[in-house]
Amino acid sequence: MTQFNEAELTDAVIKSFDGTPDPRVKFLMQELVASLHDYVRKTNLTFDEWGAAIDFLTRTGQTCTASRQEFILLSDVLGVSMLVDAVNHRERAGATETTVLGPFYVGEHRVTPHGTDISADLKGEKMFVQGRVTDLSGAPLAGAAVDVWHADDEGFYDSQRPSYASDGPSSRARFLTDADGRFFFRTILPCSYPIPTDGPVGQMIVSTKRHPMRPAHVHFLVDAKGHEPLITHVFVGGDAYLDSDVVFGVKDELVAQVEPRSDAVMPDGKLAVGPWHLMTYDFRMKPGAGVAPKPLGAVTPEPA
Amino acid sequence: MTQFNEAELTDAVIKSFDGTPDPRVKFLMQELVASLHDYVRKTNLTFDEWGAAIDFLTRTGQTCTASRQEFILLSDVLGVSMLVDAVNHRERAGATETTVLGPFYVGEHRVTPHGTDISADLKGEKMFVQGRVTDLSGAPLAGAAVDVWHADDEGFYDSQRPSYASDGPSSRARFLTDADGRFFFRTILPCSYPIPTDGPVGQMIVSTKRHPMRPAHVHFLVDAKGHEPLITHVFVGGDAYLDSDVVFGVKDELVAQVEPRSDAVMPDGKLAVGPWHLMTYDFRMKPGAGVAPKPLGAVTPEPA
Ligand SMILES: [Fe+2]
Ligand SMILES: [Fe+2]
Repeated sequence: MTQFNEAELTDAVIKSFDGTPDPRVKFLMQELVASLHDYVRKTNLTFDEWGAAIDFLTRTGQTCTASRQEFILLSDVLGVSMLVDAVNHRERAGATETTVLGPFYVGEHRVTPHGTDISADLKGEKMFVQGRVTDLSGAPLAGAAVDVWHADDEGFYDSQRPSYASDGPSSRARFLTDADGRFFFRTILPCSYPIPTDGPVGQMIVSTKRHPMRPAHVHFLVDAKGHEPLITHVFVGGDAYLDSDVVFGVKDELVAQVEPRSDAVMPDGKLAVGPWHLMTYDFRMKPGAGVAPKPLGAVTPEPA
Repeated sequence: MTQFNEAELTDAVIKSFDGTPDPRVKFLMQELVASLHDYVRKTNLTFDEWGAAIDFLTRTGQTCTASRQEFILLSDVLGVSMLVDAVNHRERAGATETTVLGPFYVGEHRVTPHGTDISADLKGEKMFVQGRVTDLSGAPLAGAAVDVWHADDEGFYDSQRPSYASDGPSSRARFLTDADGRFFFRTILPCSYPIPTDGPVGQMIVSTKRHPMRPAHVHFLVDAKGHEPLITHVFVGGDAYLDSDVVFGVKDELVAQVEPRSDAVMPDGKLAVGPWHLMTYDFRMKPGAGVAPKPLGAVTPEPA
């Protein structure tokens, strides 16, 4: 007879998955059991701690809605999302570095003419963004889709605002690169912002005395034919949180020196109104295929 | 500047918890990060697999209600609950073995006279249960509270039935041991039963070709003054699932040989009506203190 005491338990649980039809699922489940059991043994987890973990996971699941994904946030603040990104992008070979998609991507944006001010209605310091999409040799990639999105001057994305459903997107657009691989647009300088602290994940960050801030950044999703879709951020140089991003998304190469300017004429020849900032960043695409991601923010709750 | 690439990421996440005020919480969080990161690296987890995990955890949280705890079920079927029990009960020194509380404990039961038929309204084969509560030397412990609960002939607990709110408890009671440490009652022979398979955890069990069955058992929670509360099951000998309990709760010592009887008189001197079964099990209590557990089944959802 099988005795599920401490010595025999872990082997018995691992063996219980021996009949899993998909070999990859079998491997993932058996490694998961080994990993969880090692953790319980190493920490001598108490009943109260186990109960607190059950309660935390339950509340995390129940905080998720169609527009909020608290488990992705948990993965982000534990560095798991960035690590999954890293192990899936080990061979960059000169291509631009990747970082997390984040919860505020809402799917393919509307194509917008170059030069458009995508934050026309928002207060904040003016910024002109320009860049170029090339292959690894520096040859321009024309017609590449460049999706951009960023937070407003108060640290919120358009999709976090109640007005999003009626007013539509803001600080969010798609540009198609010209024959020289270039794109450019106007917007405001985004600011650093906190992850939501009103849920279990934010409460954990506060109670462990971490700070909840992300350094200021613009999200980019670049999709060029014959190349792997590139998901990344460009960070604003000098931000106080670059060294301690709550989701660990920063890489040196992704930090742009955003220059304060007072030139009367902007790079596209149009007149400036007052001082502005210039962000310049070029993207080098890795050859390959792959589909652009679906938005991860929305997990539809099952009917109760 | 900190670069959160693959080489530096794990250390950075671990360090982010350095300021955690409670040293035990700090240890648990830092070991959790190390464990999760080891898992992602060892499995080279893909984006799709990560996304499936996020979705699974989210649905598990959203399946929990005031009367259903799907995360405890997940812990149970991965052997984590039994392992937590094991690492917290390493020194038994002759005391009765422990096993999981399970999700169907509803808190302290109503005290019931010895001999009562606690399943009077239910169909099923009749069973007489008798036992004795002693200390490690075999000396009787009088006035000990013996909470018992078990599934009905269709594999359901009273608390899983819609009629529970109106009809009250069934197959669930508390007995106080007499001067000789004895208790006894009538009930039906419980049957093996499946864990719920209509939620994400049950679906995982089905898709990995495990079976969802628990061998037949009666739950006991014995609480005697000056001794550690004892949470255990007594299993029905000969059950087909003793070697493959879906929650790994079985220990050899906890299996009772339930004897089929046709005696006209039952152990308490009263007449039998037809054939019956006899379950006899004695409990040896470990000296110590400790509070009896609260029910784990109910985690109150937070307001949305
Ligand atoms: Fe962001
Ligand atoms: Fe049970």
